[in-house]
Amino acid sequence: MKTFKLAIAYDGTKYCGWQIQPKGISVQEIIEQTIRQVTNTAIKITGSGRTDAGVHAFGQIAHFRTEKPLEPIKFLKSLNSLLPKDIRITGVEQVPASFHARYSATAKKYRYVIYRNSVHCPFQRAYSWHVRESIDLQLLQQAAQFFIGTHNFSSFANEAHRGMAKKNPLRTIYSIAVQTPTPSQIVLEFLGNGFLYKMVRNLVSIMIEVALQKRELLDISRILAAKDRRLAPKPAPACGLFLVDVYYSKLPS
Amino acid sequence: MKTFKLAIAYDGTKYCGWQIQPKGISVQEIIEQTIRQVTNTAIKITGSGRTDAGVHAFGQIAHFRTEKPLEPIKFLKSLNSLLPKDIRITGVEQVPASFHARYSATAKKYRYVIYRNSVHCPFQRAYSWHVRESIDLQLLQQAAQFFIGTHNFSSFANEAHRGMAKKNPLRTIYSIAVQTPTPSQIVLEFLGNGFLYKMVRNLVSIMIEVALQKRELLDISRILAAKDRRLAPKPAPACGLFLVDVYYSKLPS
Repeated sequence: MKTFKLAIAYDGTKYCGWQIQPKGISVQEIIEQTIRQVTNTAIKITGSGRTDAGVHAFGQIAHFRTEKPLEPIKFLKSLNSLLPKDIRITGVEQVPASFHARYSATAKKYRYVIYRNSVHCPFQRAYSWHVRESIDLQLLQQAAQFFIGTHNFSSFANEAHRGMAKKNPLRTIYSIAVQTPTPSQIVLEFLGNGFLYKMVRNLVSIMIEVALQKRELLDISRILAAKDRRLAPKPAPACGLFLVDVYYSKLPS
Repeated sequence: MKTFKLAIAYDGTKYCGWQIQPKGISVQEIIEQTIRQVTNTAIKITGSGRTDAGVHAFGQIAHFRTEKPLEPIKFLKSLNSLLPKDIRITGVEQVPASFHARYSATAKKYRYVIYRNSVHCPFQRAYSWHVRESIDLQLLQQAAQFFIGTHNFSSFANEAHRGMAKKNPLRTIYSIAVQTPTPSQIVLEFLGNGFLYKMVRNLVSIMIEVALQKRELLDISRILAAKDRRLAPKPAPACGLFLVDVYYSKLPS
């Protein structure tokens, strides 16, 4: 039995998310179908975590195990020749049997893109959140500081499924970088040991409310402390979010 | 009678080009329909020039004349609220009656984007030409030099319509900037007093053939001198091309 690791980039616009679901087409099922076409066997892949409907990925990671002999470069080319152009396999490598895309992950990086011109850019429409009002970058930076470190993020986690066993709500955020690559774009990069369901979009949502002066900076610490999802605003739109990288072993610098 | 100038950005992916055509939906007709909805009158708009099916624009310019009193900012907002999200009006202003989007233009800037990784980026798939082979940037720079200045570009102009009167084939290119904003992207920016039909895509095509060492640098001057369209390769794909800016009065620096 061999274990293979896949690196995957996808435009999430058309999909119901990463994970196979009763309704809609998921990225995972498209890749599994394509692997079946190439290998003539049914192979289940395991992702590093789910991404929601409309969320994108530069570097989603998945693994699978197979008895089949696979030559990584040839396998990558075969998959890409059959996959739709909005899903690309960017890497295939054989890894030790102990590797698990979800359980071996030590950190993840997410990017959230905001477009802040009065008129949205047609090329950014599926890849950013359009915010027309004036965003105070200094307040945005200050809002970010409340989330750095280890916190109970219950107030910023949606329930994935009703009645599902509660996950440990403690997560550590190492950094939140606020960048403005162009005058119209704000890019927020979140690096943490893991993120709860819809957590990045929930953090972005309250950070922007603060930066638009619709809410006080200190509301953030109050809501964090309350551990009550109902106090925080609804998540920022899915289309602005990108899973950038999943880290294994050592932490990224 | 008042004259208004429109600045327009569009994602050309879904359209048959700028200009109204018997087959397919054009950007021009979508905008004219929307102006009719807003003003309750049929108004014809004139663009600075056509863009082909699949070609994009950051800064297409058009004008129209009307007796209707229009308040530019309100008119812009009304149009954008009704237009599909892949077409955005980025500016509306009243201009002197002498203004003509095509005849008053003194220069245009086009951008052509090449993506040169072994695996294409899913977010670039509709906005770049994917070239897998190794591109020699120095040869690309050298190839560009042959086109700077005033030349007869007949060899690099497609016929718009069979039997159409031949246009003056002399054009002046002021500059061709070769940039690499990321290691995977090559951006070519063409600034000239005007461009013949499919000319930018034809220039990109031969420049890339030279940069892939499929053709000699000196082939360019031979083909330019021959004034024979049949000697030059077919145009580079439409999806990599963007009309960036149209200039009126003074030349851009």
